[in-house]
Amino acid sequence: MILLDGKIASEAIKKDIAGEVSRWTLEWGKKPHLAAILVGDDPASQTYVRNKEKDCNQVGINSSVYRFSSDISKERLIECVKTINEDPDIDGLIVQLPLPAHFSEQEIIETIDPSKDVDGFHPVNVGRMVLGLPSFVPATPAGIVDLLQYYNVTTRGKECVIIGRSNIVGKPLANLLSRKGGVGDCTVTLCHSHTVDLAKVCCRADIVVAALGRPRFLKADMVKEGAVVIDVGISRVEDNTAKSGFRLVGDVDFEQVAPRCSYITPVPGGVGPMTRLSLLKNTLQAAIKRNKM
Amino acid sequence: MILLDGKIASEAIKKDIAGEVSRWTLEWGKKPHLAAILVGDDPASQTYVRNKEKDCNQVGINSSVYRFSSDISKERLIECVKTINEDPDIDGLIVQLPLPAHFSEQEIIETIDPSKDVDGFHPVNVGRMVLGLPSFVPATPAGIVDLLQYYNVTTRGKECVIIGRSNIVGKPLANLLSRKGGVGDCTVTLCHSHTVDLAKVCCRADIVVAALGRPRFLKADMVKEGAVVIDVGISRVEDNTAKSGFRLVGDVDFEQVAPRCSYITPVPGGVGPMTRLSLLKNTLQAAIKRNKM
Repeated sequence: MILLDGKIASEAIKKDIAGEVSRWTLEWGKKPHLAAILVGDDPASQTYVRNKEKDCNQVGINSSVYRFSSDISKERLIECVKTINEDPDIDGLIVQLPLPAHFSEQEIIETIDPSKDVDGFHPVNVGRMVLGLPSFVPATPAGIVDLLQYYNVTTRGKECVIIGRSNIVGKPLANLLSRKGGVGDCTVTLCHSHTVDLAKVCCRADIVVAALGRPRFLKADMVKEGAVVIDVGISRVEDNTAKSGFRLVGDVDFEQVAPRCSYITPVPGGVGPMTRLSLLKNTLQAAIKRNKM
Repeated sequence: MILLDGKIASEAIKKDIAGEVSRWTLEWGKKPHLAAILVGDDPASQTYVRNKEKDCNQVGINSSVYRFSSDISKERLIECVKTINEDPDIDGLIVQLPLPAHFSEQEIIETIDPSKDVDGFHPVNVGRMVLGLPSFVPATPAGIVDLLQYYNVTTRGKECVIIGRSNIVGKPLANLLSRKGGVGDCTVTLCHSHTVDLAKVCCRADIVVAALGRPRFLKADMVKEGAVVIDVGISRVEDNTAKSGFRLVGDVDFEQVAPRCSYITPVPGGVGPMTRLSLLKNTLQAAIKRNKM
């Protein structure tokens, strides 16, 4: 069993990105620039945005954060998005989710210029990805593809079962892995709450992706001997033996499942660190594209 | 075995559409209006456009055709699309494909206003469909969903295998059938040229959709007893017993497969007639939405 180590892979890929960013910066006399909009004071969102700033800093990408209190009006938020859309110095823009309940997240996302939508959430980018056209791919599916590529895991002709049909993981990943060429050409089955006999479906998979958000859901009897297992989940569970009183676990019962696998991602340290790369790659791509035009 | 008769179903649904169109026309004092752009003199394209005009006429939708010779410049074609985009009297616009080789079809499609893109080919509509948002769904997947619905074929929890990952059939249908609710909630597997042991994969399906464009490809030993079989293919094959010297067949070896099925579509007269409905439904929807605003 080989561990698909997201820390090692992401550090290596980050170095490559830093190299590309530095070459681009030298050529154009400016750095790529990512803007983030943060509304309200959700502590998790604040941590995420801080990490994104750190990542940018590490690879030589400029970052700015636009902070608003949670009672900002829809009109002012949209105005801010539009100003950033038109700012020639900003290449990529993300709106940190979740937004306070009085916003329609979809409406706000759709006001982002698709050519700056480095989260890949705008319908234009989702559609272009499905159609096999160049697009910004969302963080988690992109991270999984990068991880498989880094470890040279073959996907062509493999049976892949994805558990969970969310808009940000399951659906885009199903579309990516069944695409022609590259890390694709899988025979993908997308499973969800209405799937009958999920264990049987999972057992036929060469690659299983657990992305349903239920701690330790995937058990040994749901995995074929020699399968590749990708664990997207991350939950806190109580653990009296830990100092903090809790422990982070994934959607896979790692202890049970790992011995049967050819490859498996740990949690934490598997998919998680990989998801932080796509924002950097997408911002660089956006800068390259914008300055070519 | 029950025949999923697309002629019967489409005639019945067309009557419903005509009723809705007539109520809408009464309320707004005008008819919904579909525009079609036809470039060049491909005989098949001319027939398709003529049929679309006939269909519109039958349900009370206005139609206009903009005809251009095949040497029209990209600039003039785009100008025409933009003029129609801004014409308040036109609700829906299609550009009949294929375009002459010197055009990028994708570029032309992306100039269509997504709110008038009743073919559902614009990335915004593809993306919105995948995300489960209201959108225009392309003709063939929409027709299949309508046919299943008309015959009350249950999809929830069923295993569905789709053969063929084209942008206009396989991919959108996979996304539609795995969506939450409605004619969805299937466990969908999308197969293609790199799928290993396709017969085995097909044999586990409650619903098989053959959309690969190879005449009589799906044989009896690839279908589970009692399965629902949807045949998207239509090819001419030589037939000396026919007056014309040829015969239309689908991707399914109907004679072999039909006796094993619970439901099956004939070719011709199955999926074909159903695909002609979505343009009418989408144009009416576009008219409703545009006039609400």
